[in-house]
Amino acid sequence: MKIITLLTDFGSFYPAQMKGVILTRLADKAQDITFVDIAHDIPPQDVRAGAFALLSSARYFPAGTIHIAVVDPGVGTERLGLVVESGGQIFVGPDNGLLMPAARSLGTPGNPLQAYKIAISLGALGQAIPASNTFHGRDVFAPVAALLASGKSAAGIGPRVRPKDLSFGEAKKTDMGIEATVIYVDRFGNLILNMGKVPAFPESLKGI
Amino acid sequence: MKIITLLTDFGSFYPAQMKGVILTRLADKAQDITFVDIAHDIPPQDVRAGAFALLSSARYFPAGTIHIAVVDPGVGTERLGLVVESGGQIFVGPDNGLLMPAARSLGTPGNPLQAYKIAISLGALGQAIPASNTFHGRDVFAPVAALLASGKSAAGIGPRVRPKDLSFGEAKKTDMGIEATVIYVDRFGNLILNMGKVPAFPESLKGI
Amino acid sequence: MKIITLLTDFGSFYPAQMKGVILTRLADKAQDITFVDIAHDIPPQDVRAGAFALLSSARYFPAGTIHIAVVDPGVGTERLGLVVESGGQIFVGPDNGLLMPAARSLGTPGNPLQAYKIAISLGALGQAIPASNTFHGRDVFAPVAALLASGKSAAGIGPRVRPKDLSFGEAKKTDMGIEATVIYVDRFGNLILNMGKVPAFPESLKGI
Repeated sequence: MKIITLLTDFGSFYPAQMKGVILTRLADKAQDITFVDIAHDIPPQDVRAGAFALLSSARYFPAGTIHIAVVDPGVGTERLGLVVESGGQIFVGPDNGLLMPAARSLGTPGNPLQAYKIAISLGALGQAIPASNTFHGRDVFAPVAALLASGKSAAGIGPRVRPKDLSFGEAKKTDMGIEATVIYVDRFGNLILNMGKVPAFPESLKGI
Repeated sequence: MKIITLLTDFGSFYPAQMKGVILTRLADKAQDITFVDIAHDIPPQDVRAGAFALLSSARYFPAGTIHIAVVDPGVGTERLGLVVESGGQIFVGPDNGLLMPAARSLGTPGNPLQAYKIAISLGALGQAIPASNTFHGRDVFAPVAALLASGKSAAGIGPRVRPKDLSFGEAKKTDMGIEATVIYVDRFGNLILNMGKVPAFPESLKGI
Repeated sequence: MKIITLLTDFGSFYPAQMKGVILTRLADKAQDITFVDIAHDIPPQDVRAGAFALLSSARYFPAGTIHIAVVDPGVGTERLGLVVESGGQIFVGPDNGLLMPAARSLGTPGNPLQAYKIAISLGALGQAIPASNTFHGRDVFAPVAALLASGKSAAGIGPRVRPKDLSFGEAKKTDMGIEATVIYVDRFGNLILNMGKVPAFPESLKGI
């Protein structure tokens, strides 16, 4: 069995298209897929909120899980697509930092995250309908996740790259108390602040 | 494996009842079902918005997929229930045009959509709880989908009928520019207009 | 196959953590799980609305279904966690009445619901990450549901207890007409009133 999670800011019906693409591509292996929606109501284009939701959730999934995360204000620009492997889990999405807090949290100093640029041509993905410039979630990341779910290695998707990082910033002690930033507001009205510890970006990747 | 998608304007907890009905009826075959929610937040009773979401999404699913779609302001009236087969996929829902843009888009001139009226009595469906007048999604369409998923043919559900069509209208060139209608507003604020091409209603069905 | 439903007031991304916990704990048995989300948009901390949604939905699921329901304003206090067995289905959640209308509705006078206090230590659940004081859905109820899904009996979770009940109240005839309470407002604007019949709390449990 393969677990594929989805996290987007897409709201209604676009995530189903991603699942349809994956099920179509996997054909008779599709029965081994379990989809889990992490969230599709991330505030539009709020990469930091999406990164927080993914960071909070990935640790609860078993090794082998493939996470597709798409909060992607840079879609249609030159930003890369990434496959990031960390702690036995795989993340697929845009190179805008979205995947990094979660991927960093699962890595260890001896076994840090590895990132690969999506360099497979869309033709090679067998895309029947041409890829859009605005919906890489469906036209690039979902097909890549289907490839990974069917056994292709992350390293087979493209060359190693140094991914863009994302920081939640750091809370500071001031004369008045503590100055922190709100990362996320949940539906109970809880404010989540940047006061927890997030593992650092791996030193080994800084030279790439 | 059978994929069953659901698209409704029901919001919370009613779609789960439809899934429960299907799982109960399929019993030991239920493990072969993969549910995919397309959307449950279609604006209440907005058949056109639902038709657009279904049209946009159905093409990404593999042959054999069963789509249950219910945006149904006419529930409790004499409107028919339909099973529509097109391009190897099956659509189940009310005869108010909701299913038609998607079904038309999957048909070909040589192999157009076929529509059947749901004419099986509820008794024959083995309904334990009497069908309501307001929730055919759960009490009629879900049981019919379960029958189809367990192997019954679309033609076995009832006689061929000519379904009601639905048009998104056509954008027009005017002196001022182009006059188009907004079909759907997504959560990014994108307005989707009726300026794309939707395949025509099959000629072969016009005589039924 | 095991069906596990989830009903919460958690909104975004927390329910996915519960699924991740269950999939992780079931490991190679995870492929037999079918998740069905009943609702995650219950108004925050509105136990009565959650109880109504669960009551309305449970009857449509087959015997063997495990329902996790968490609307839990008392989390972090001394309130008990419960496993309730009724009519062949199992309910897991807080002892605040949330589970009771549904559980009562599935029981019969000869075979009423049975309730058990969750008395397994978190250590015994093999919790890798310490249980939080605010998220028993993920840290207590999901692990218990995984145990039940893997074959442990409800009675193996802890001693029998008499659960707290919840009443929707009773509509009254008055000189002016009928005085009823709104239990739930759906997205069509329908107001659901406390005028239906809900089976009584089992006499046999009143002595515990």
